[in-house]
Amino acid sequence: MQSSQPSIGVDIGGTKILAALVDADGAITKQIYHPTPSQDVPATERAIVELVQELSGGQLHCPVGVGAAGWMNRDSSRVLFSPHLSWRDEPVRDRLESQLGRTVTLVNDADAAGWAEYRFGAARSVNDVVCLTLGTGIGGSIILGGEVYRGNSGIAGEFGHQSIVPGGHRCACGNRGCWEQYASGNALGRDGAELVRSKSPVAHNLRAACGDDPSAVTGSLVTDLAAQGDSACRDLIEEMGQWLGLGISNLVSVLDPGMVVIGGGLGSAPTELLTVAESHYRRTLSGRGYRPFAQICRAQLGPSAGLIGAADLARQSSA
Amino acid sequence: MQSSQPSIGVDIGGTKILAALVDADGAITKQIYHPTPSQDVPATERAIVELVQELSGGQLHCPVGVGAAGWMNRDSSRVLFSPHLSWRDEPVRDRLESQLGRTVTLVNDADAAGWAEYRFGAARSVNDVVCLTLGTGIGGSIILGGEVYRGNSGIAGEFGHQSIVPGGHRCACGNRGCWEQYASGNALGRDGAELVRSKSPVAHNLRAACGDDPSAVTGSLVTDLAAQGDSACRDLIEEMGQWLGLGISNLVSVLDPGMVVIGGGLGSAPTELLTVAESHYRRTLSGRGYRPFAQICRAQLGPSAGLIGAADLARQSSA
Repeated sequence: MQSSQPSIGVDIGGTKILAALVDADGAITKQIYHPTPSQDVPATERAIVELVQELSGGQLHCPVGVGAAGWMNRDSSRVLFSPHLSWRDEPVRDRLESQLGRTVTLVNDADAAGWAEYRFGAARSVNDVVCLTLGTGIGGSIILGGEVYRGNSGIAGEFGHQSIVPGGHRCACGNRGCWEQYASGNALGRDGAELVRSKSPVAHNLRAACGDDPSAVTGSLVTDLAAQGDSACRDLIEEMGQWLGLGISNLVSVLDPGMVVIGGGLGSAPTELLTVAESHYRRTLSGRGYRPFAQICRAQLGPSAGLIGAADLARQSSA
Repeated sequence: MQSSQPSIGVDIGGTKILAALVDADGAITKQIYHPTPSQDVPATERAIVELVQELSGGQLHCPVGVGAAGWMNRDSSRVLFSPHLSWRDEPVRDRLESQLGRTVTLVNDADAAGWAEYRFGAARSVNDVVCLTLGTGIGGSIILGGEVYRGNSGIAGEFGHQSIVPGGHRCACGNRGCWEQYASGNALGRDGAELVRSKSPVAHNLRAACGDDPSAVTGSLVTDLAAQGDSACRDLIEEMGQWLGLGISNLVSVLDPGMVVIGGGLGSAPTELLTVAESHYRRTLSGRGYRPFAQICRAQLGPSAGLIGAADLARQSSA
């Protein structure tokens, strides 16, 4: 039986640490933030403690869930690796617990967002869910039988690093051809920049929008122009949608989920991306015609999903 | 509490239907077979019934597990699709149960083999296991938390149809670039035949062995020559090992299992295949250096794994 008291969710992003008081129905009742002190680990941990203390008003001792991009070990006591922060196999949970004097639950940010969608969003009451957070890269989470599936060492769901193009684009992970090099905000920005450098007349609007500076092209710029109807940017989105659909087919072949939820900034952009992805997924899923298709759905909780999920997972752990 | 009485496992292969009496420790105490009546569904079902009755000696009413290549629906009552047989969304379980007058458990053959390795073979007591059956194609199974993970519609684990090469070799599933077109007995046979057609002097032994007839080249012929030291065939095995390792990396990124078990005829062939696969997997797993490597292990139960697993799953279901 889980508690009906509120819990606190913390979401450590690249620029801001968000913290919120979240009730048992997943509603945020208060939210505050602090700029992320980048690579400074002690300052990051201090900022988390201050945010939690401020939200608690010195009284509540509600559980705290902290979501961050990174890998938590199996018992979620240590951050094995975090791309934006400088945590490298460190006992972050115990440090935060001793400073806060209460239970802290560390969670991967994509797992937190996926859990929120399963509990309160697009995937309520769906059995076996795959969630993608499409942002600069691809975050992934897997919810099976009413629990976040974390794997044997705690780091399942690294969908973005499936290799789908042998010898393809170099990925920040050191490999080539990873899915997130073909279906992410970074991929879209890279492809847009390449189009600008090509001096192609089709890139007229894109070149104008970035001042003819390829380094100023971002995924957001491409999605914005596509949403305004620019055909070159719509082509880039369409191409990306096909890669997105192909990778989803791969995941569905392996996991056969009841639903695939797509969230993140790029997943909610007003473009044809998901329509193209779904169509390509339906053309490429092996066994089509002899098996049901898992539904592809847009996430419902927007950028607060990570906060809500971290808070709810903390509530569940302390129940 | 599971029963200690024996159960019966049936394994429907392309050429033979095997049936065995299997004790509670996974040991086969009696085994018989019948040629597979190919595309004839009533004859196949009659053969299963006769084998089970013969093994039972008219007395035992032990549970029966029937493993077949194909997709069973979520409650395992219907075969949705079977590549070798002609079952197309048919209520096979109920038909067999009414003819046999006892409980029948239908299972995917790769799931049966994986389960046997988890219960009695290479993956005993390992949490979260991925099993590959490398034969003409790639069979897959996933064991999570002490159960076969079957997904939302019963057909999880279709690893062989991950797309890993855009525009690659055509697969029997209708797509291009599926993993099993790069890492399977069929792939090896196709590559060997191509080498024979090329008239390359490096294929001297292979050409002699197949009588210069590319259509006579099989995966087994290539593995046999490789085991004898033929360098062209060893190169083919090495190339395949790299694809095998790459696909394993993809699965480990998604599922983070405690162990990857490799079985099937090709998995047990006396070649360097698994050594190369493991080395390539270790070079391509994203996040290497910051995460543990799941072990890759050879299956231990050989070609009986499917029989043993089907029998054991039947015993578990009836407990």
